[in-house]
Amino acid sequence: MLSGGLLERSICAVVGTYGTGKTTFALQFAYEGLRRGEKVIYISLEEREELLRATIAQKGWNMEVFGEGFYLLKLDPTDFNLAISSIKSELPALIENTGASRVIIDPISLFEGLFEDESTRRQEMFRLIEVMRDEACTLVLTSETDATNPEGSRYGLVEYLADTVVLLRYIRSAGLTEVHLALEVVKMRRSAHSREIKPFEILQDQIMVYSEASLF
Amino acid sequence: MLSGGLLERSICAVVGTYGTGKTTFALQFAYEGLRRGEKVIYISLEEREELLRATIAQKGWNMEVFGEGFYLLKLDPTDFNLAISSIKSELPALIENTGASRVIIDPISLFEGLFEDESTRRQEMFRLIEVMRDEACTLVLTSETDATNPEGSRYGLVEYLADTVVLLRYIRSAGLTEVHLALEVVKMRRSAHSREIKPFEILQDQIMVYSEASLF
Amino acid sequence: MLSGGLLERSICAVVGTYGTGKTTFALQFAYEGLRRGEKVIYISLEEREELLRATIAQKGWNMEVFGEGFYLLKLDPTDFNLAISSIKSELPALIENTGASRVIIDPISLFEGLFEDESTRRQEMFRLIEVMRDEACTLVLTSETDATNPEGSRYGLVEYLADTVVLLRYIRSAGLTEVHLALEVVKMRRSAHSREIKPFEILQDQIMVYSEASLF
Amino acid sequence: MLSGGLLERSICAVVGTYGTGKTTFALQFAYEGLRRGEKVIYISLEEREELLRATIAQKGWNMEVFGEGFYLLKLDPTDFNLAISSIKSELPALIENTGASRVIIDPISLFEGLFEDESTRRQEMFRLIEVMRDEACTLVLTSETDATNPEGSRYGLVEYLADTVVLLRYIRSAGLTEVHLALEVVKMRRSAHSREIKPFEILQDQIMVYSEASLF
Amino acid sequence: MLSGGLLERSICAVVGTYGTGKTTFALQFAYEGLRRGEKVIYISLEEREELLRATIAQKGWNMEVFGEGFYLLKLDPTDFNLAISSIKSELPALIENTGASRVIIDPISLFEGLFEDESTRRQEMFRLIEVMRDEACTLVLTSETDATNPEGSRYGLVEYLADTVVLLRYIRSAGLTEVHLALEVVKMRRSAHSREIKPFEILQDQIMVYSEASLF
Amino acid sequence: MLSGGLLERSICAVVGTYGTGKTTFALQFAYEGLRRGEKVIYISLEEREELLRATIAQKGWNMEVFGEGFYLLKLDPTDFNLAISSIKSELPALIENTGASRVIIDPISLFEGLFEDESTRRQEMFRLIEVMRDEACTLVLTSETDATNPEGSRYGLVEYLADTVVLLRYIRSAGLTEVHLALEVVKMRRSAHSREIKPFEILQDQIMVYSEASLF
Repeated sequence: MLSGGLLERSICAVVGTYGTGKTTFALQFAYEGLRRGEKVIYISLEEREELLRATIAQKGWNMEVFGEGFYLLKLDPTDFNLAISSIKSELPALIENTGASRVIIDPISLFEGLFEDESTRRQEMFRLIEVMRDEACTLVLTSETDATNPEGSRYGLVEYLADTVVLLRYIRSAGLTEVHLALEVVKMRRSAHSREIKPFEILQDQIMVYSEASLF
Repeated sequence: MLSGGLLERSICAVVGTYGTGKTTFALQFAYEGLRRGEKVIYISLEEREELLRATIAQKGWNMEVFGEGFYLLKLDPTDFNLAISSIKSELPALIENTGASRVIIDPISLFEGLFEDESTRRQEMFRLIEVMRDEACTLVLTSETDATNPEGSRYGLVEYLADTVVLLRYIRSAGLTEVHLALEVVKMRRSAHSREIKPFEILQDQIMVYSEASLF
Repeated sequence: MLSGGLLERSICAVVGTYGTGKTTFALQFAYEGLRRGEKVIYISLEEREELLRATIAQKGWNMEVFGEGFYLLKLDPTDFNLAISSIKSELPALIENTGASRVIIDPISLFEGLFEDESTRRQEMFRLIEVMRDEACTLVLTSETDATNPEGSRYGLVEYLADTVVLLRYIRSAGLTEVHLALEVVKMRRSAHSREIKPFEILQDQIMVYSEASLF
Repeated sequence: MLSGGLLERSICAVVGTYGTGKTTFALQFAYEGLRRGEKVIYISLEEREELLRATIAQKGWNMEVFGEGFYLLKLDPTDFNLAISSIKSELPALIENTGASRVIIDPISLFEGLFEDESTRRQEMFRLIEVMRDEACTLVLTSETDATNPEGSRYGLVEYLADTVVLLRYIRSAGLTEVHLALEVVKMRRSAHSREIKPFEILQDQIMVYSEASLF
Repeated sequence: MLSGGLLERSICAVVGTYGTGKTTFALQFAYEGLRRGEKVIYISLEEREELLRATIAQKGWNMEVFGEGFYLLKLDPTDFNLAISSIKSELPALIENTGASRVIIDPISLFEGLFEDESTRRQEMFRLIEVMRDEACTLVLTSETDATNPEGSRYGLVEYLADTVVLLRYIRSAGLTEVHLALEVVKMRRSAHSREIKPFEILQDQIMVYSEASLF
Repeated sequence: MLSGGLLERSICAVVGTYGTGKTTFALQFAYEGLRRGEKVIYISLEEREELLRATIAQKGWNMEVFGEGFYLLKLDPTDFNLAISSIKSELPALIENTGASRVIIDPISLFEGLFEDESTRRQEMFRLIEVMRDEACTLVLTSETDATNPEGSRYGLVEYLADTVVLLRYIRSAGLTEVHLALEVVKMRRSAHSREIKPFEILQDQIMVYSEASLF
């Protein structure tokens, strides 16, 4: 569906409600990079390092690829100043020092939630995106959905700022007897992409999208 | 559905509107632990001890397993300072002193409601979860649903913070002639789990989920 | 449906929009108690005594059972201080002095509306429920529904505080040619109860639920 | 449907969106009274006397019945003090002096809108209803609907305060090719009434409800 | 549908979302008057005179009827004081001086939007309507719809104040393959009118309603 | 559908949610002008020049037409003063100096979002439109949709101010298996236009609308 994966140096938003596999998506994106010898920075605002590692282990992935090029930053989502300076000031330097070509912020919505008024949030997000566009890396940002709009992100910003938007969601059958996960590539700048809604499953060791093209 | 029950040392949110069986779910989780010889702490913000005991008795459970390892705290949901210090400061010590491996807060939404502004509530919830992650116990948090979003908790936080989310709800037939309860495991980090919506009934003595796997 | 009626010493919320028969439900609950020789306290915030008596007369009930054990309090829903002190301070004494085993507040939503901010309302309602739990009586509270949530009470509190919730509502056929009243026992703590939606009619002299079990 | 018309000395709310015939309903109620020799007070906050008379003339009604016992008050809905004193202080005296047995306020929602905060509005409406209950007349109050709840009045009060609620509404067919008016008696205290939704038409000279019982 | 057109000296609201033909409706009402030798005042808050004239020309109408009795006022919708004094103070004099029997304000919603608080807006609109009722002319007011209520005007006032309400809207087929415009006369005081939803088309030179009666 | 394209010297709003092809639409409008030898001004508030050029290159368009008559302004959407003075003061001069006949602001919603209160935003937008009407050019304004109204623009203004409104949207099949893009010309002043919803695809090198008429 993504016709060969995410574009290099593009920004991708992964939007979905709880339990749709946003972190699994982000980890698989990281894992694929590591397997190819790339460096990866993973900024987690939600999960502790040991729990992310447990998730990875539970997937049965080869842990050896981690450690060499995997830089995990666990940020405290309640520490406003630290989180903001880590992401705004230190991230560019870290990318340059490590040569990381894949960067993940999971979830960006917790970062956005640190700003109390909407116009500051918008300004800071525009600036973050501007800074990241100068870096030689692909950026994946995960976000919760808005409670009243299941196709929009929590703060209605990242889907407009990103080049690519992947929407993860549930399809519950009318009689509420079955639940499926569906993945839709809603937007992809600078690329032809198929507009299909594909069922997917979070298997033990990967997200399996029932489509010809590889997702990562 | 939960493939062998809740993971040890994980955090589970049980979300449902009034009458869907959240307290019965929590009590059964407690009961199963006691039967296996585990210690259980039950923090109730809604029901008095004698009424919880009456509920247990009405289920016909063997009361003898209680008393030995069952620590019930009834908190007054209108006493801000006491409730907060009990949960934030004293709970970790209590867990360590008693060696409890199962802890229930029923409902967490009354605790969340004690904070008047959203950002304080969010910070306090993040910190509570952080503290609880260091304890060697499984935590079950029940929550009312949001009036406008029947798949989200009252304050839209616990479903994102928890490792596992169990959604309890009504299915009313179109002609409004029948009502059924349905249970869905929407999210389960670090575990493959089936994504099915299962009818269940609150029987005299247990929650019976019509599924192969044991729930507790 | 209620398997033998409301439990003794429990709290029951009757929730419905205008015209669904909340007052008729409450009166029938009162009447059944009086017929069995019990004492009943009826706190009305909406209807005058002579109009309640006219309603009773119109139902053709034997008025002699009233008068002996029927204590009616008409409260002015605009007199904040009087209404609050009557319900909070004087009601417990009245229950003890009269030996009433059935108490009705119709509607509780007018009492809740006296509090201007949500946290005070919540605190006062928690305290009222706490006080009433110490009394040896069954309490019936009627409430209007919330304009945006036809399954919730006006202030979203009583359905969580009560042991039993009875939902009264309209079922209008798709073509808007017929209207029926439906009664659903949504929640009933400490009791197995059937989960069915039953049509009912407000007949001249009683609420007739088309179900085997007696409602009162 | 109303089994013989509105009860004497009761309060009736007529709720409907624009164009559903609220004023026609109120005028017909007035006309029926006049024809029977009763006195009628009509307080109009919307229509000028000459326009109301034009409406009556257009219906082809016998104008002679008016003039003798028809007291029309046109109130300016923007003059807070005058409107309030006219309705609150002078109306009871007028009823007593004229011996009117039918009183109409059309629409009450413009009167309610004069109060800027909700709790004052509620208090004033409770008091108005209390005062009117002491008068020997039947009161008809018309009200616009709430924009978000087509079954509720503009301010969500009169349907709870009134003894009888008549809901007027449109039924638009699914394909939007036909429109019908429907009348439903949703609530009627102290009377058995049929719960049916009846189509009606505003004919040249009357509201014709397709039902056996007379509406006025 | 309007049984012979709009009543003389009545007030008509034309409510519809963007693109439903409100201005075309208003222009055709003006044109019909001019063709019959009447004088017309057209107050435009949105379109410049040259653009309105271009619209008229594009319809192929005989421009000669304009110029003689067509008074166009283009008001700046951002100039609060000028717009208000033009409409409130000068319009009555202009009507009397010109002898205009048709007056259009297109759209009234931009005028209503000049008032920042709701109660001032309501008062000013009531007064404008009162003043206009004393003039010997028919008044047509166009209005955008409310974003959340497609059957109500932007500020929920004109549909209640007007004698006649014409609702213009889209009917999109379920599969979103076709779009039709539909016109509904929802309200018409002092006149029997048919209650049908009629498809219409904006042709090169007129609004063609597929109904027997002439609209203008 | 647009019967020969956009009218000269008209204002066109292109409204759609993320990923519906608003920028592609605007670029194709620019490209068609350039191919015909016209001058084009493109004000981008979202995309950097190099990324817009990459998008153009990815479409396989002949880049040589650009450069000669293509004036790109990248504005920082967080720099209030600069953005406003660029658009309000400098744009008219730039149009006159360059002789541009096509001007694009992509997206106008970011410009509108710079104003914090609604009445200032409305006034500034009215004035911008007034100024642009004096210029000899066709103006295309793109806008995000409102989260709660998929047929309205983010701030509910441009669809009323523009002469032409093109709505871009997704049609997701009921079973959520397919997604199509649909284009609808909702409004077109001073022109007969077909009212159809047409599927379209964003091909490698153009927007292909499945309709007879050319879109650009």
